[in-house]
Amino acid sequence: MSVKAKALYTFQSENKEEISIQENEELIIFDENSVDGWFQGENSRGERGLFPASYVEVIRTRSNSNVTDCSISPAGSLGNDSYFLPSTTNTTLNTQPTYYDIDDDDDWDDWDDRSTVVEDADIERSPGANGHSHQNPPSNNPNVHYRAKPPMERQDSISSGRKGSMVGRNLNRFSSFVRSGVEAFVLGDVPMMAKIAESYTIEMSPQGPRWKESPQPFSCSIEDPTKQTKFKGIKTYISYRVTPSHTGRPVYRRYKHFDWLYNRLLHKFTVISVPHLPEKQATGRFEEDFIEKRKRRLILWMNHMTSHPVFSQYEGFEHFLMCADDKQWKLGKRRAEKDEMVGAHFMLTLQIPNEHQDLQDVEERVDTFKNFAKKMDDSVMQLTHVASELVRKHLGGFRKEFQRLGNSFQSISQSFMLDPPHSSEALNNAISHTGRTYENIGELFAEQPKYDLFHMLDTLSLYQGLLANFPDIIHLQKGAFAKVKESQRMTDEGKMDQDEADGIRKRCRTVGFALQAEMNHFHRQREVDFKDMMQAYLREQIAFYQRVVQQLERTLRMYECL
Amino acid sequence: MSVKAKALYTFQSENKEEISIQENEELIIFDENSVDGWFQGENSRGERGLFPASYVEVIRTRSNSNVTDCSISPAGSLGNDSYFLPSTTNTTLNTQPTYYDIDDDDDWDDWDDRSTVVEDADIERSPGANGHSHQNPPSNNPNVHYRAKPPMERQDSISSGRKGSMVGRNLNRFSSFVRSGVEAFVLGDVPMMAKIAESYTIEMSPQGPRWKESPQPFSCSIEDPTKQTKFKGIKTYISYRVTPSHTGRPVYRRYKHFDWLYNRLLHKFTVISVPHLPEKQATGRFEEDFIEKRKRRLILWMNHMTSHPVFSQYEGFEHFLMCADDKQWKLGKRRAEKDEMVGAHFMLTLQIPNEHQDLQDVEERVDTFKNFAKKMDDSVMQLTHVASELVRKHLGGFRKEFQRLGNSFQSISQSFMLDPPHSSEALNNAISHTGRTYENIGELFAEQPKYDLFHMLDTLSLYQGLLANFPDIIHLQKGAFAKVKESQRMTDEGKMDQDEADGIRKRCRTVGFALQAEMNHFHRQREVDFKDMMQAYLREQIAFYQRVVQQLERTLRMYECL
Repeated sequence: MSVKAKALYTFQSENKEEISIQENEELIIFDENSVDGWFQGENSRGERGLFPASYVEVIRTRSNSNVTDCSISPAGSLGNDSYFLPSTTNTTLNTQPTYYDIDDDDDWDDWDDRSTVVEDADIERSPGANGHSHQNPPSNNPNVHYRAKPPMERQDSISSGRKGSMVGRNLNRFSSFVRSGVEAFVLGDVPMMAKIAESYTIEMSPQGPRWKESPQPFSCSIEDPTKQTKFKGIKTYISYRVTPSHTGRPVYRRYKHFDWLYNRLLHKFTVISVPHLPEKQATGRFEEDFIEKRKRRLILWMNHMTSHPVFSQYEGFEHFLMCADDKQWKLGKRRAEKDEMVGAHFMLTLQIPNEHQDLQDVEERVDTFKNFAKKMDDSVMQLTHVASELVRKHLGGFRKEFQRLGNSFQSISQSFMLDPPHSSEALNNAISHTGRTYENIGELFAEQPKYDLFHMLDTLSLYQGLLANFPDIIHLQKGAFAKVKESQRMTDEGKMDQDEADGIRKRCRTVGFALQAEMNHFHRQREVDFKDMMQAYLREQIAFYQRVVQQLERTLRMYECL
Repeated sequence: MSVKAKALYTFQSENKEEISIQENEELIIFDENSVDGWFQGENSRGERGLFPASYVEVIRTRSNSNVTDCSISPAGSLGNDSYFLPSTTNTTLNTQPTYYDIDDDDDWDDWDDRSTVVEDADIERSPGANGHSHQNPPSNNPNVHYRAKPPMERQDSISSGRKGSMVGRNLNRFSSFVRSGVEAFVLGDVPMMAKIAESYTIEMSPQGPRWKESPQPFSCSIEDPTKQTKFKGIKTYISYRVTPSHTGRPVYRRYKHFDWLYNRLLHKFTVISVPHLPEKQATGRFEEDFIEKRKRRLILWMNHMTSHPVFSQYEGFEHFLMCADDKQWKLGKRRAEKDEMVGAHFMLTLQIPNEHQDLQDVEERVDTFKNFAKKMDDSVMQLTHVASELVRKHLGGFRKEFQRLGNSFQSISQSFMLDPPHSSEALNNAISHTGRTYENIGELFAEQPKYDLFHMLDTLSLYQGLLANFPDIIHLQKGAFAKVKESQRMTDEGKMDQDEADGIRKRCRTVGFALQAEMNHFHRQREVDFKDMMQAYLREQIAFYQRVVQQLERTLRMYECL
């Protein structure tokens, strides 16, 4: 069904499938359902092709046209705290509760590549957009990719039923506090549902609030990436064997399935840091190294998912891990997409402890975490940069130096052979062998990143993603806390009922507990992951230098029997 | 005694002690005895100071002025065989048999530094001079220095008594064949002395002719370089303790003593490759690293001297190794300088075997060696270049990479400390320790060249010097062989007595035996030295990587008890 739209920003096409659009230009969209963030349509010059959904506003003639009103001006008051600039400004204006049409498997392959381009383009081009503002990754490091969050449906539409709240609303429509629905939740604009099927419990621990462990913890392997083809080889994709430990039954998933799950997680879970998926890659999707890297990073992503008490119990995740039947898959997918307990409503599913926590204490605890997260983000960035550079050195400089040394020894040995009566074959062989040994050592250096640095970079990449989420998440708690103070002041001035203020305070406590539980979980996981990362690195380093020693010892022996 | 002189080439002063001179400018020289290749004098503009002796021609009014005639035109017929371009064209025109005044100990310190500059300048500036023409050292390698041979007195003055030989003389005055006096020797122009005190025997071995071993083989240690001062600290020099094994009595020698000995060796020994002394250094003469490097290289030089059957039995060398008395030193020095059995006359001291050797076979053997030496020179150059570059990498790139990795780990650990209730001190300590370990590994890399690459470069430098001598030495044999063929032709044509031709052939055999003995010695020594060099390198490399492994293993243990 074609609809009209208006371009909010100018977009310059970069591929032949894309068309350029000018700010304020009238457009026709052929299908209202964007695919991976792209609309197909026609511009005012009659050119047909793709343009980013986030760059346009759909012009609606139906009753709920008010929704578009509040969603245009990105040049609002973004400058509150540069560390808390929202990382998601590429909100699609596809704001109806229509879900992306992702059943069309066959089209997806085509889109898979392009979406990376879109994401990068969004970060670079969208006015006011700044994927992750407090520190940009060094441009010479191809492994560092900040991934902007995919579009999220606007949660404030939920609150349309109650407009009378006396506490002021945040006018910054780009604030994560607003977008996530947490503002609406805190203000009591999210009605309690009649029956809530799911619930996530937060309990107290010596380290403060934490997510209650899943009663059925499990892990999940990802193995055997296999190239599959469709339509007589025209379409190619990689399928992974995904085996949850508690069923032992493998299911086969493609990256697009992970991506679907990831978008569900973003959509549903507020105040929880959703681990980023390994980046997409525009070219060379099927190159061996890329497939290997994606597999490793999907494994880490999956470990994070299964170890998280909330994610691991999510129905959509269960569906992803267990459903092996095509028809059932579509049904379960649609069910997950129609889940109403998302965003603001998700907050209703949280069971918090009765313990009193002074809000000021929570505030301080969060500030400490914020400083920690900022510094950890910086140092993870630094280590990523150094490790990437070290990979480059291993493959280039180190290898080259040792190979040149090896060549030179060979050359010495060759020269010694030129005066046969005076030439000791044993010595010449030993020197020539030394040459080969150093050539091998050069190769060992070049191979080594596969055994150590790559794994370090994988973990660091996961943590870069997790850390990138925290500014927004902390912002939620800040917003909620501000509402409490505002309501307190209004009550003091007699402008608000104590009941209403108590409600706001109570809901703010929920936000605080959830954030603390998430902080706690992050720390516990960080400790496990970094211990593993460092141990694995050191073990591989030791094995590496021992291999070098062994090669040299074998070589030295050749001289001893001369 | 002041004398007049004329500048042959333009020289631009580079230090305040030096003065500039223009080509053809008239000069006054204050002391005819140049010191380390420099004259002190005055130019036509009245400036007083130093200029290189090899840049000027002393204007003599005495009877032997003819000597200067044949020594100027360096642009002669040099192009016979590019591999055999003479390596010594910076002949001083100080051609009288006056010996350098090197008794003046106190002045020497001042000159020591500058003489390197002169040598470099000679190679770069002298028209037609080309220190070592068949391959120039890579310019980015400061460790490779081709050292031009110091000036050698012209030997052809010896032959002034007999001018009537029928076989043509080589008109190329820069040919080593002529300069060394071997032409004169072969042509029978060197009269047999009444009594010859010394003799060096060549004997046959399965690998062909070789120098007969010294009946009293010995070695010699060089230790304990010590800074000494004179004149209340105004003059400073380094003294080495030199202890020959057969006396066990140490003598103390300075670099200038080594340099004196080296010049005696060059002067005396024809057809023998005199090992170059470690290079002089223009600045930082007393820096610890330089002293250490010079000591290491003097030790190698000394090992080569003591292991050589001819050098080790030379009276001047014995004097150098044993004389501990100042007065005796001067006497012995003068005696060595007045030694008449030098150059062409040295050839008279050789005792050769009676075995018949076909001259054609000798020629082929020499050609094989020539090819070998050329290739070995190339590969030694290549390895020197690679090893020097590796030193640079160890001190720079490798150290930096590991230190940056160490820093990044430290930084991670520091960030983990920022949220104390959630912070595991044991993990933070382990990561921080890992950081220090990699900083240490960086230092290990930077230190390592001292234990391995420096020693390799020392050996390579010695061999560069030895190999650089061979083109000239081989040229002697080629020249002698050409004389034999010429005399044969003349005898056939009835233009020469058979007796005279037989004499030339006999003396050519002596040259051939001497060269083969020297080739043989070179090969035997090469085998020992390169085996040692490679073994030492591998042993130190193994020890190095083992140290790295140990450091990493200790560090890994910190994680295992977490």
